[in-house]
Amino acid sequence: MGLKALDYESINENMKKVEYAVRGELYLRASQLQKEGKKIIFTNVGNPHALGQMPLTFPRQVIALCQAPFLLDDPNVGQLFPPDAIVRAKHYLSMIGGGLGAYSDSRGNPGVRKEVAEFIERRDGYPSDPELIYLTDGASKGVMQILNTIIRGEGDGILVPVPQYPLYSAAIALFGGSLVPYYLDESSNWGLDLNDLRQSVARARSQGIMVKAMVIINPGNPTGQCLSEANLREILNFCFQENLALLGDEVYQQNIYQDERPFISSKKVLMDMGPPISKELQLISFHTVSKGYWGECGQRGGYFEMTNIPPQTVDEIYKIASISLSPNVPAQVFMGLMVNPLKPGDVSYEQYHRESKGILDSLRRRARIMTDGFNSCKNVVCNFTEGAMYSFPQIQLPPKAIETAKRAGKEADVFYCLKLLEATGISTVPGSGFGQKEGVFHLRTTILPPEEEMPAIMASFKKFNDEFMEQYA
Amino acid sequence: MGLKALDYESINENMKKVEYAVRGELYLRASQLQKEGKKIIFTNVGNPHALGQMPLTFPRQVIALCQAPFLLDDPNVGQLFPPDAIVRAKHYLSMIGGGLGAYSDSRGNPGVRKEVAEFIERRDGYPSDPELIYLTDGASKGVMQILNTIIRGEGDGILVPVPQYPLYSAAIALFGGSLVPYYLDESSNWGLDLNDLRQSVARARSQGIMVKAMVIINPGNPTGQCLSEANLREILNFCFQENLALLGDEVYQQNIYQDERPFISSKKVLMDMGPPISKELQLISFHTVSKGYWGECGQRGGYFEMTNIPPQTVDEIYKIASISLSPNVPAQVFMGLMVNPLKPGDVSYEQYHRESKGILDSLRRRARIMTDGFNSCKNVVCNFTEGAMYSFPQIQLPPKAIETAKRAGKEADVFYCLKLLEATGISTVPGSGFGQKEGVFHLRTTILPPEEEMPAIMASFKKFNDEFMEQYA
Repeated sequence: MGLKALDYESINENMKKVEYAVRGELYLRASQLQKEGKKIIFTNVGNPHALGQMPLTFPRQVIALCQAPFLLDDPNVGQLFPPDAIVRAKHYLSMIGGGLGAYSDSRGNPGVRKEVAEFIERRDGYPSDPELIYLTDGASKGVMQILNTIIRGEGDGILVPVPQYPLYSAAIALFGGSLVPYYLDESSNWGLDLNDLRQSVARARSQGIMVKAMVIINPGNPTGQCLSEANLREILNFCFQENLALLGDEVYQQNIYQDERPFISSKKVLMDMGPPISKELQLISFHTVSKGYWGECGQRGGYFEMTNIPPQTVDEIYKIASISLSPNVPAQVFMGLMVNPLKPGDVSYEQYHRESKGILDSLRRRARIMTDGFNSCKNVVCNFTEGAMYSFPQIQLPPKAIETAKRAGKEADVFYCLKLLEATGISTVPGSGFGQKEGVFHLRTTILPPEEEMPAIMASFKKFNDEFMEQYA
Repeated sequence: MGLKALDYESINENMKKVEYAVRGELYLRASQLQKEGKKIIFTNVGNPHALGQMPLTFPRQVIALCQAPFLLDDPNVGQLFPPDAIVRAKHYLSMIGGGLGAYSDSRGNPGVRKEVAEFIERRDGYPSDPELIYLTDGASKGVMQILNTIIRGEGDGILVPVPQYPLYSAAIALFGGSLVPYYLDESSNWGLDLNDLRQSVARARSQGIMVKAMVIINPGNPTGQCLSEANLREILNFCFQENLALLGDEVYQQNIYQDERPFISSKKVLMDMGPPISKELQLISFHTVSKGYWGECGQRGGYFEMTNIPPQTVDEIYKIASISLSPNVPAQVFMGLMVNPLKPGDVSYEQYHRESKGILDSLRRRARIMTDGFNSCKNVVCNFTEGAMYSFPQIQLPPKAIETAKRAGKEADVFYCLKLLEATGISTVPGSGFGQKEGVFHLRTTILPPEEEMPAIMASFKKFNDEFMEQYA
């Protein structure tokens, strides 16, 4: 009969080219060990609730009422829900019409998109148009929609930072495009070097690749740096000169752990620069309910805002979104709640503020504990996590470890991370999953384990690492 | 500067080829009219809650508790929630670990997948493996994942019924494959003719297309027919002979409005047939929480089950699902509740049973009212809606109407449906959006408007139609 449609040899070759280390060999091995009864600390994905972070109370109250609207008619509702949650649930239910069980418009509910636009206006000080904001099932889905729009084939290149979050390499491979890497400079706190960027573009062009867009992740994943306004200007100018669209992955905009470089959006900097660039540069900005102090990953809510994208293209993106009918509606309500939060004076404000500040303050302390912990280890150096949720220490592996790994048929960082997992239960992602310069090794871990466990985890890491370095010295 | 990355002329050509009539010209015009204050009856999408269907109470109670787990610690919880909802919420929360805000495994929560497997076993009488069941953000997303796996380029063909649900044509166009149509026979109640099927395959092969898979929609969308066991055997045998994978879209399996042909799954028929076919034929079956008496479209929950798919391919599909991290978790709980429903004796059983039976009984009556209504109209003939949620009447348009449409630059059925919309507010989808034989015209409407409004809607339709036929006689 020959090959069948779903035999491995028959299927889409682009799928096979995809690598996705965040859920790769290390994750699979960790899942296996967990099944066998070992205690695993999953720091492979930025998944705060899985590591014990409690959800914010107020949005969960509102969504519970939206899911069970009949509670609003129950005379006892006030015993379980505060009045502002009840008001807010009624607001979203009336905005949504058919409730959470009805498909929304494929771009998301118009009322929520308006709340997002108002949030962006307050944040940036410039107008935002709800018609150019599309809600998505998490930011990753939005990034995939846009890359799928841009990429026609392997002649189309996308500039991606290295180290990078593997969503980008995976999606570019799946859509059959070409990833054009630009390197972040670890020695200058993962800064971006314009000369290196220019060389990357020139090299790609000399290979016949049309470079179409540039990705920035700010704050950085896995690298944790926050871009300064001056740096963002340079990037925007570069994109303008080189005729590139800019994809601004800004999902960690609430996760800032220092005061020197607060988050500033690409959209604001672009608008500040004025015409012609502010009227011409094509920018897509991404955000999510999965990060920040929300961490509502499992709800799958996100949005992207399109700036200077022609209406015909906006319509095509709408049409394609329509194939899967609508983003999930509960997460649209979460997005509304995130961008239109409680205000001082609201009954639940104090609790909401206390909870969110508690999470952010603790993350800031954990970022410090982790960086200091790594820097106290033998052959490990680590930049401070200025933002986002990750620590990305460099592991300076001795030649003997590299050779041993090679003989075992493993990348050296994979070898190290597997040993770490077996010894301590700490499930990380090897740096090779994010890309790095030849012969330099890292791992990525989230800063999300509970704060009270952090000292023990870092001690356990140090013990493993220092013994490993001893063993392979 | 030349073209930019997101200028219409620069973007992915496959996107431009996509047509998606369910949210096409008619929907956009209807949305416009609604904005202007006109009352619109949206029957373009199978979206029950948008048309007033109430959600089932029990699952919404469970999900509300899962979203607000702190309620479980409140001494007053029993005043708003029945004890079985509380037990079930605790069951899912303990199964899920990090709660609804944590990413699950990219295939979905293992416990829910086990509940799905048990449901399939009870339904079909054959074993089902949770490792071969992947949860998705609605069935459409699952269909897209599988088509993306199968299609490598325009040389790969997928057999799709015509008329068809445009998800298939849209996804095949987006992935750059070739749609190979086979016609359903309206005169034999949208039956499937094996000879026609064979000819379709032969024709495609003569054009150099490798036909890789066949789609069936059972019960049919937009055509509403239920496949008999004999017919399913023929289809399976045909796929086996022709070395095709079978994609079984079974999202309407709970929506049956006659007793002669109850739903029977492709998986069961395949297993009944025994080896070699039961061990070799590659089958993917799709299901959802959006249809049935649930109608929870906005939650975006679905699954697919893979039968006889090699492990390496299963792993590739897993890897690609991992790029977007996980299907939304609340809808996974809905799926668990749907496949593992309340049983007689449970405190909330009676209400649950009453609500679901009420919805199904009413849908059955509405299917009848609508079919009879259409058949009472001048130049309209309509098969009975045996299942699913749609009526697909043939509109025999007079030559004068066809000419007038042509002069207006419209397809004749689009012309008719636009006039219908303007005159009555009824928003349908022209048959050309689903494909049909040359010179034959239809429209699709859902049977979902509230039962009490149905007579008035059908009267309004009849008045419009009969005047239209008069005018263009």
